[in-house]
Amino acid sequence: MAKNAIVGQSGGPTSVINSSLAGVFQACQMRGADNIYGMCNGIPGLLDKNIVDLSKSFPSNLEIELLKRTPSAYLGSCRYKLPSLDSDSMIYEKIFKILKELDIEWFFYIGGNDSMDTICKLSDYAKQINSNIKFMGVPKTIDNDLMITDHTPGYGSAAKYIGVVMKEIVRDATVYGTPYVTVVEVMGRNSGWLTAAASMAKSEDCEGVDMLCLPEVPFDIDNFIVKTEKMLKNKTNIVIAVSEGIKLTDGRYVCELSDDARFVDAFGHKNLTGTARYLSNQIMKKLGVKSRSIELSTLQRCAGHVTSRTDITEAYQVGGAATKAAFEGHTGEMIALKRISNDPYQCTTEAHDIHKVANFEKKIPLEWINTDYTDMLPIFHQYARPLIQAELTPIYINGLPRHIYLKKEKH
Amino acid sequence: MAKNAIVGQSGGPTSVINSSLAGVFQACQMRGADNIYGMCNGIPGLLDKNIVDLSKSFPSNLEIELLKRTPSAYLGSCRYKLPSLDSDSMIYEKIFKILKELDIEWFFYIGGNDSMDTICKLSDYAKQINSNIKFMGVPKTIDNDLMITDHTPGYGSAAKYIGVVMKEIVRDATVYGTPYVTVVEVMGRNSGWLTAAASMAKSEDCEGVDMLCLPEVPFDIDNFIVKTEKMLKNKTNIVIAVSEGIKLTDGRYVCELSDDARFVDAFGHKNLTGTARYLSNQIMKKLGVKSRSIELSTLQRCAGHVTSRTDITEAYQVGGAATKAAFEGHTGEMIALKRISNDPYQCTTEAHDIHKVANFEKKIPLEWINTDYTDMLPIFHQYARPLIQAELTPIYINGLPRHIYLKKEKH
Repeated sequence: MAKNAIVGQSGGPTSVINSSLAGVFQACQMRGADNIYGMCNGIPGLLDKNIVDLSKSFPSNLEIELLKRTPSAYLGSCRYKLPSLDSDSMIYEKIFKILKELDIEWFFYIGGNDSMDTICKLSDYAKQINSNIKFMGVPKTIDNDLMITDHTPGYGSAAKYIGVVMKEIVRDATVYGTPYVTVVEVMGRNSGWLTAAASMAKSEDCEGVDMLCLPEVPFDIDNFIVKTEKMLKNKTNIVIAVSEGIKLTDGRYVCELSDDARFVDAFGHKNLTGTARYLSNQIMKKLGVKSRSIELSTLQRCAGHVTSRTDITEAYQVGGAATKAAFEGHTGEMIALKRISNDPYQCTTEAHDIHKVANFEKKIPLEWINTDYTDMLPIFHQYARPLIQAELTPIYINGLPRHIYLKKEKH
Repeated sequence: MAKNAIVGQSGGPTSVINSSLAGVFQACQMRGADNIYGMCNGIPGLLDKNIVDLSKSFPSNLEIELLKRTPSAYLGSCRYKLPSLDSDSMIYEKIFKILKELDIEWFFYIGGNDSMDTICKLSDYAKQINSNIKFMGVPKTIDNDLMITDHTPGYGSAAKYIGVVMKEIVRDATVYGTPYVTVVEVMGRNSGWLTAAASMAKSEDCEGVDMLCLPEVPFDIDNFIVKTEKMLKNKTNIVIAVSEGIKLTDGRYVCELSDDARFVDAFGHKNLTGTARYLSNQIMKKLGVKSRSIELSTLQRCAGHVTSRTDITEAYQVGGAATKAAFEGHTGEMIALKRISNDPYQCTTEAHDIHKVANFEKKIPLEWINTDYTDMLPIFHQYARPLIQAELTPIYINGLPRHIYLKKEKH
């Protein structure tokens, strides 16, 4: 009987989730899996038997190099919440029937919080039915909000992108020398790790960002306007980075005050957008100063043309480490990154019980933020700066970066 | 008496206007100007005698290399319309008095349409009063809408950035495999050159953008919805690039239908924003399909981390050519780029009477657009593709690109 591996990608795209796919694929190949399958669009794709043979996708190392440089998720992704066993045991039976048909021995799922929940439920169920299939979680999220792991693959590249464009936005914003407030909206529903990265723009050659608004700190609009007015007395051009997820003391998202809160997704998450636009409008109205808003939007999670080589390498490593652990018999675990030292930066991997990871969110420690809640303290920079080091140069063909993609039929 | 040069930057920032400044500075230095001054924030800065000595700014070639890699305008910019001589002769007298005090012999202004208008008026006035000062225009605009010149420095880098991020947005947009329409808003008030650049995303490794909406073509919302609905029958994920400047047949901008048309600037230009958001809302409302909007915003004009080397080089060359012409006695001219061949791409410079350039706008020839007005024909790609070739690698320090900037006091 063949012993096969299967891997899926889930949750929001990042610039490095494909590096983890490369890591899983190459480690499975090296360790002698008979077939290495990819499930398209995660668990829903698996349920539809929407499967590809990855050795056909990646016949040589050139495809692997392109894969590492291709943002988003090669296999497609999903926003799918596996129901609890109590509420729907049929779906578990169906998944395991398909896995049996495919002779799956090792199952890898690359994703964030919701994906680790999936690994948790499937590995628990496997134990219950005495299945031998090994289920391993491979962490990925630009939000950096997974527990246990020092940081998550995907964060370093998004943080680097934010640092890069904030420096450029500061240069652009200061060009006319007339009073102007630029409000930049950064992703991060409940944690401010990405917004905090904007603070890295400040350096010898850049004035940096003047204020951060993090979701860890309750947001007060009057206080925000007072702070902005005060800054304008000393400086002509103000650049502010706000998290899309900042909330009022009553628990409402700031963007709910605008007219842009449009969707509720399958997880009941609100689609947050319009925070910066709302605040920019408030600044104009209350302070009579010109202002504009910029949403970094999806570009911050898919900017494959400017990634952190450190991040790409670690994303590859957690894929490889998950494979090693699964082949050694581990199941129901997630690979975490464990930092050994900041300077020189050293980091290794270790496997952790998935129950300690799933469904918890890691936020920025409040003691990493200054007393005014407007800037990050040096301890954050010691933490984050190593993660944005070095670059992986795109392979430019005819002026644009080369990607690799799976041609899909209409779903 | 010293013979000095002065150079200013004007209009919207680009990623390469500083390369033209480098070109002017180094050519003036080589040709023996006694002093090379920079005026801060263009003509208004000159009127305030806000002047810097550029040899102090750029003591070595390292600063020149950093300058070429720094987006926005090193000297600061302005949105200033020089009044006509008839309406305000005092300002002309004041400018020439200041230029005389500074012993200026050569005057360079790097910018777009409005800046060429300034060179036109100043050189006409100089002739009238028998001044010997040479006035030269150095073209720059991401919009590519200047007459006479084959293309404008700044366009190639913005076009490359748009091509790069459209490929990434397509990868991101297709990730869930569920019906989705992404509407991306691109700059370009009256000409669609930048939006057209989105068509370059289509390649062997990318499905490309499904529809372009250019300001050269009157926009009909019903027709737009019908076309989108039709595309959704054959394809799950649709990506549409729209120019911020698309107009209805009655002449109103589409974004005026939204609530975002907020400013009228010193030139009476409306600040266009909200076009994509408005159309995305219409798609959701009328077609019942999920949709999102992305504004490329100022990132498309200041993305110094991903520039076209061709563009950077040409920006430097037009600066040098303007200097050569001025030192040879030319005045009242703009340096144009003249294409010699497409493949292999060759381009040279030539000087043209500024009267033929100022206050005209170059639009995309309608015969370069397909009959459905949704895509560009191969002739556009033959024109644009050479302009995005090759890269100028940023100098990364501590994970972020290094810039150079002029520390300014509060204005």
